[in-house]
Amino acid sequence: MKMKIVVIGANAAGAKAAAKAKRLNPHAEITVVDRGSFISYGACGIPYYVADMVKDEKELMSTPVGVVRDPAFFRKVKGVEILTETEAVAIDRQNRKVSLLKVVSGETSFIEYDALILATGSSPVVPPLEGRATPGIITVKSMEDAILLKEQAVAGNRACVVGAGLIGLETVEALAQRGMQVTVVELCGQLLPGILDEEMANLLEQHIRSKGVTVMTSCRVSGFTGSGRVEQVATDQGEVTADLVVLAIGARPNVELARNAGLAIGTTGAIAVDNHLRTSDPAIYACGDCCETVNLVTGAPLYAPLGSTANKQGRVAAINATGGDAIFAGVLGTAILKVFDFGAGKSGLTEGAARAAGFTVETVLSPAPDRAHFYPAAKPIALKLVADAATGRLLGVQAVGPGAVDKRLDVAATAITFRATAEQVSHLDLAYAPPFSAAMDNLIVAADILKNKLSGHAKGVSPRQVKQMQDDGDDFLLLDVRSPAEHATMRLAGAKLVPLGALREKLETLPRDKEIVTFCKISLRGYEAQKILNAAGFTKVRFLDGGILTWPYGVET
Amino acid sequence: MKMKIVVIGANAAGAKAAAKAKRLNPHAEITVVDRGSFISYGACGIPYYVADMVKDEKELMSTPVGVVRDPAFFRKVKGVEILTETEAVAIDRQNRKVSLLKVVSGETSFIEYDALILATGSSPVVPPLEGRATPGIITVKSMEDAILLKEQAVAGNRACVVGAGLIGLETVEALAQRGMQVTVVELCGQLLPGILDEEMANLLEQHIRSKGVTVMTSCRVSGFTGSGRVEQVATDQGEVTADLVVLAIGARPNVELARNAGLAIGTTGAIAVDNHLRTSDPAIYACGDCCETVNLVTGAPLYAPLGSTANKQGRVAAINATGGDAIFAGVLGTAILKVFDFGAGKSGLTEGAARAAGFTVETVLSPAPDRAHFYPAAKPIALKLVADAATGRLLGVQAVGPGAVDKRLDVAATAITFRATAEQVSHLDLAYAPPFSAAMDNLIVAADILKNKLSGHAKGVSPRQVKQMQDDGDDFLLLDVRSPAEHATMRLAGAKLVPLGALREKLETLPRDKEIVTFCKISLRGYEAQKILNAAGFTKVRFLDGGILTWPYGVET
Repeated sequence: MKMKIVVIGANAAGAKAAAKAKRLNPHAEITVVDRGSFISYGACGIPYYVADMVKDEKELMSTPVGVVRDPAFFRKVKGVEILTETEAVAIDRQNRKVSLLKVVSGETSFIEYDALILATGSSPVVPPLEGRATPGIITVKSMEDAILLKEQAVAGNRACVVGAGLIGLETVEALAQRGMQVTVVELCGQLLPGILDEEMANLLEQHIRSKGVTVMTSCRVSGFTGSGRVEQVATDQGEVTADLVVLAIGARPNVELARNAGLAIGTTGAIAVDNHLRTSDPAIYACGDCCETVNLVTGAPLYAPLGSTANKQGRVAAINATGGDAIFAGVLGTAILKVFDFGAGKSGLTEGAARAAGFTVETVLSPAPDRAHFYPAAKPIALKLVADAATGRLLGVQAVGPGAVDKRLDVAATAITFRATAEQVSHLDLAYAPPFSAAMDNLIVAADILKNKLSGHAKGVSPRQVKQMQDDGDDFLLLDVRSPAEHATMRLAGAKLVPLGALREKLETLPRDKEIVTFCKISLRGYEAQKILNAAGFTKVRFLDGGILTWPYGVET
Repeated sequence: MKMKIVVIGANAAGAKAAAKAKRLNPHAEITVVDRGSFISYGACGIPYYVADMVKDEKELMSTPVGVVRDPAFFRKVKGVEILTETEAVAIDRQNRKVSLLKVVSGETSFIEYDALILATGSSPVVPPLEGRATPGIITVKSMEDAILLKEQAVAGNRACVVGAGLIGLETVEALAQRGMQVTVVELCGQLLPGILDEEMANLLEQHIRSKGVTVMTSCRVSGFTGSGRVEQVATDQGEVTADLVVLAIGARPNVELARNAGLAIGTTGAIAVDNHLRTSDPAIYACGDCCETVNLVTGAPLYAPLGSTANKQGRVAAINATGGDAIFAGVLGTAILKVFDFGAGKSGLTEGAARAAGFTVETVLSPAPDRAHFYPAAKPIALKLVADAATGRLLGVQAVGPGAVDKRLDVAATAITFRATAEQVSHLDLAYAPPFSAAMDNLIVAADILKNKLSGHAKGVSPRQVKQMQDDGDDFLLLDVRSPAEHATMRLAGAKLVPLGALREKLETLPRDKEIVTFCKISLRGYEAQKILNAAGFTKVRFLDGGILTWPYGVET
């Protein structure tokens, strides 16, 4: 008898699982049910469709050669039956049946399975705020959302994006590109909370503000008002006028079907699965945005819905559902976005997450060009490494800037996967030619600084700590060791200038009793100054991590 | 008493070693001697200087903030003494002294050392061909070469570049950009021998030819003629007219000083060192282009001079020379270049090198866009993976194309360093958003294909093998499963068209006794066709690796 596999959900994870299962067992009968009418669309592409970089929504639903992935395509090419506008309303685990409801006609039926794969996805979080049903308030998830958003992105109008996570900021750029005046409102005190530490987020915020976007952080939205259509967003920092509101607060896994069937739900609120993506019922698998996974750095459960993970999980679920043996071990919580001219992202743990997980951390903040500095296309990247101070193991990386941040994140993600130490990262044989990197890639420079810090040679102090020392009125010397020309262009308030080349001769002008914080453009000369001062008997010397380039609290020009 | 460290050679490795040693031991007396007048220049930047993308040669000798790294800079900023135009002519190991000769005045002296670091670099190979001293024949190594080459790169004139390795091809582009008519002559049967396997090199060759460059492979140069200046390059394929000849045949380590001092020379011809970069004399270290290293994949000695490696080794030599303990384990032979609109490179072993090292290999050829296919900036990359068939361990990667090849090479290099298997690579949590990659990154797609091949699900055949079958007149069916529209645009000679969507219904039109090779644009539909045919009882079916996109033997249009 033919094996019957039912997949619920026909997006990234579900579509992948169905096609893969058919390739593995060509005699199996594979049915996918989806309550929507659009299937297998690239939800991650919505911001680019809204920005009109992608002209036609069909492009988001097509294969790379331009064939629309509709039910006919899946039937003829993949050998898989897809039932759209069909909701799976209940699972009868004992009899291995799923009850179906035709969304339009209300017709009911059921379908039997030998193996069931849940790929029910996620839904945007919509908090129960007053006026949330006012027309003009849109989420960013479905193709219907995308089409609506593109229509309503009217040049000259005002948009308010609520939530400064990945989707929120991608939408900020899309709407700004369409000529809207955009305000982004974020509950936390920084952009991309959970993805960037504060000083990195500040660098991104400066860039977004420079593009004319209004940024309101630590700001709570309390409701929406408007007659017939949204006009105002009420917040604890006052009203924000808006002709269009985008809610990008986050995503919540769709677990009702699983919960009602008695399947275990994990601590994150998503469907619990083992490393074979089996739910608490061994005949039922879950993959994609509806299930939780494991943080590979800490081993803790993690909910991190992403299209890339969904595709990998769909494959694993299909292999196991057809009798094979595949493992999905977890993720690093890698995340990235492009917003205006900057890329920003992370892999592994932020400093905050690492401390919360109980690690004693050492960090590095290192700005550098992404190619040989003399190569005309070179652009800067600010890189932050977070390491376990006890072992030197790399726990996380963050990158922000106009340079190729994605490459450094991916290399670091690979290194973190294999539990690499700073020592190992510093010796990676990365591909070097001037159009691609400096002779010492950003990641290798940062790893070297990390090694210098871990061995006690280099003593850094973070911009945040220095700002705190200033705010507390601490008596310390901020020592600028750049050239007079650099100093003339851009300065930190209150800093004394002694160019590095003159430092050895001007030691007597410096106080031996006071703490000294050295800095230059990026931190290398700051570090050299620390070493020169240490050699001359100055003991209380640290350099400013990342130099003036990553100082996020304003400079004198 | 102050420790005395002498470094011979003031380029990448030597300059790095000297500066690092001073930071580690500020009381040490560090002296660098160099026979040249230019020091610490970025030789890798020469092609971009010749192309006039870098206007002033000083940019190649400056720090990122524009300070020229001359002896005054090293003295004042780094605390290191540099003696230029000073040749180290002999090492007296017993008395720890180096004899010095002032190149201009002929004055001799000696300098004592506690630790000696050899960073004598490499020289371009200049074979003993007739007429090799004719004016107008230039190598690409020193700043003097660079200045001469830039002067003589006259628009409209003809240039002949001998050697199609990394430097040769970078120079080809530079001279073409200056408006020269360029011919490149290579002794091997392909471009970038040792870096790319033949089918990947062919893709690069097609691109270079499309830019108007004449490519002559399997071509031996026998000499140069011209009256007063070079006019002709004599080869076994006839004479090549040239107003300028660039010799880019390779680099040879400068080992005379070490050899004359009785230090061990390795099997590669470079100075032998242990993993602390100690030579056979424990007081003498070697780093950079003058010493050999280890291939991390095979464990065999390797000579792979590169600026990136030189910097890492300089650091390690400095740490050990000042009494520390640092290891340089080896390299992967990672290499990359940009030529016109393509990037190309490798890390680890090519298929040829893997077979030569005794591995039974499985390979994958996978072309795909480097970003989400709907994202306007997406550009293709052809990726080749080489794996150990027994264990699935990734041994090497090659990448060619206009897309971001460097990112995939660096991720693969990191994975190879940690001896990752195809399974592990396929689950890497790489940074995904449409501007940076597809939901399944090129490397993950390729690793999935590799897994399918290793498990026996996917049966591929390389373009080279198919070409051989055609040339041998084998009786097999080449089955194009693309759409009629795709077929109309570009075809493989003799292929039968059955679009994948119609395949299940047209099985009776296909021969059951004959071998069938399926293909599509990239290979995914070719693989699906293989699975459909297998399920229908066809047993002799393979798909063409990489599809029509990486078929390097010409197509019908």
